[in-house]
Amino acid sequence: MIARYFAPLAAAPGAAGLTDDAAVISAGRGDLVVTKDMLMAGIHFFADDPPGLIARKAIGVNLSDLAAKGARPVGFLLGLGLPPDWSEAFIAAFADGLRQAAMDWNCMLFGGDTVVSPGGLVVSITAFGRAAKGRIVRRSGARAGDVIAVSGTIGDAALGLVLRGGGEAEWAAGLNAGDRAHLIERYLKPQPRQGLATAIGRHASAAMDVSDGLVGDLAKLLATSGVGGTLQPDAVPHSAAAAKAVVSNPAAKVRALTGGDDYEVLLTASPDAFPRIVSAGRKQGIPVTAIGAVEAAAGLRIGLSSGLRLEFSADRYQHF
Amino acid sequence: MIARYFAPLAAAPGAAGLTDDAAVISAGRGDLVVTKDMLMAGIHFFADDPPGLIARKAIGVNLSDLAAKGARPVGFLLGLGLPPDWSEAFIAAFADGLRQAAMDWNCMLFGGDTVVSPGGLVVSITAFGRAAKGRIVRRSGARAGDVIAVSGTIGDAALGLVLRGGGEAEWAAGLNAGDRAHLIERYLKPQPRQGLATAIGRHASAAMDVSDGLVGDLAKLLATSGVGGTLQPDAVPHSAAAAKAVVSNPAAKVRALTGGDDYEVLLTASPDAFPRIVSAGRKQGIPVTAIGAVEAAAGLRIGLSSGLRLEFSADRYQHF
Repeated sequence: MIARYFAPLAAAPGAAGLTDDAAVISAGRGDLVVTKDMLMAGIHFFADDPPGLIARKAIGVNLSDLAAKGARPVGFLLGLGLPPDWSEAFIAAFADGLRQAAMDWNCMLFGGDTVVSPGGLVVSITAFGRAAKGRIVRRSGARAGDVIAVSGTIGDAALGLVLRGGGEAEWAAGLNAGDRAHLIERYLKPQPRQGLATAIGRHASAAMDVSDGLVGDLAKLLATSGVGGTLQPDAVPHSAAAAKAVVSNPAAKVRALTGGDDYEVLLTASPDAFPRIVSAGRKQGIPVTAIGAVEAAAGLRIGLSSGLRLEFSADRYQHF
Repeated sequence: MIARYFAPLAAAPGAAGLTDDAAVISAGRGDLVVTKDMLMAGIHFFADDPPGLIARKAIGVNLSDLAAKGARPVGFLLGLGLPPDWSEAFIAAFADGLRQAAMDWNCMLFGGDTVVSPGGLVVSITAFGRAAKGRIVRRSGARAGDVIAVSGTIGDAALGLVLRGGGEAEWAAGLNAGDRAHLIERYLKPQPRQGLATAIGRHASAAMDVSDGLVGDLAKLLATSGVGGTLQPDAVPHSAAAAKAVVSNPAAKVRALTGGDDYEVLLTASPDAFPRIVSAGRKQGIPVTAIGAVEAAAGLRIGLSSGLRLEFSADRYQHF
């Protein structure tokens, strides 16, 4: 199984064709950046999601971490826990999604292991990236006066998750089929913002990917930096589909701002450096939008213009 | 929870105190060797094993891979899937076992993630080691004429697993309480053979750790090297406790040779180099015993003197 489905993804010499228990990996002259996100059936994906999309998502969420740290992908290790009733067709589809993701995102398989998982599918990825020496972008570098910004659009996945789960919400009434498909696709297919990695590495003062919800993740970033800030909810960018849902429905707006799985980059940058990130994003087709400001006083404040009442816990890890 | 129980284990600057989504890791001037083994409740450990021992084992089996590759530990990432009913006492005990293992084996925590695992505890470790540049020891370097050898003793854990599971076997009749405790401890507490890593890196032609059973693992190593060989079952070293079981019971001997979880090093070396590995082992208190010879003809042959009939599949991954 490994030789047939996974070895073709492991072309790097350090992977030894997946015939060994360990791999050799190098960042060249840069720093090797490592990250590890584990996905569980029923928590991070639906057990009946297409296997190829589960594989793609597992890679994507890890590469999203790397991009937000200003790192370029090098490779990954795959820990695969297969339910006892796994089929070869499942493996074939899973490996195909992995192969496509690896090609699209320029990230090779270096090794891993496969075990039986009585409790359902588990996909544990360790991803490796390279960053310029000493230039990894931390959560801790935000300074008072910096701009707070996000890539792409916020809230699509959190709304898409409700639709994917078969839920029907008041805010969904005005959505057409295309809107729904867009939101669900954004949940199923996170898009790591690799096109921004270099600019983040050069110009951002702090960054992280938005995986647990914008508001909570921003609160974490500011706290880690020892600062505070104000978020302007009206400035947060939404897709056309999400905008239809949130514009007239405060509950949907709250969900969009606090729900998880955006996999956009949340960053801070000095007012001088910020335009360079915007400009780099434009060249890559990735909008970068200012949504607030870093301030010296601790805590996250929500701009009042929207009239929203947001209640959230910044500490709690939330998925569905 | 992370700040309280896990951050104290993450002293390396590249770990950023576990306040970030990614870490920076370096092998200095050497090669960075990476390995990843995932352990599942009910497969690789019993759900009611002491949490600290589960943590220790999860680290140990990964460091065993590194030692067998001739690599010294640098650090590890922890992916922890917690059952929905996890308690703080469980985390405290698990983290304490992790801390002790990290100290004993000189291996720091660099990061990871914690998720809910509806199907029971999952521990996914990625371990990092360093080896001299270009000197990682593969499975593929065995050559005809080389000695085949193992560290320590073989079969303890496979017999201990039967006892740990409450099974009573014919071969166990002559064991006293001390014997039983020894075998069970060898199952619960794998001991990575770090003391051999340098000698393996310098003198072994091929190596791997014995995790899926000596016979099957040796067959894999020989096949990966494109050679064959003969194993002399009578030469395979057993502990005093295991010897009591296997000496008069062929089924126990087969179990000892084919059962998993030894976490000893299986290696090959030229007849000239082999004594240097033995000598290095002696200084570390780790016996290294010749158990056979590499030959040009493909396939693994079992020496006839023992009169054993061994039936095994070299391809199948086996745990309990």
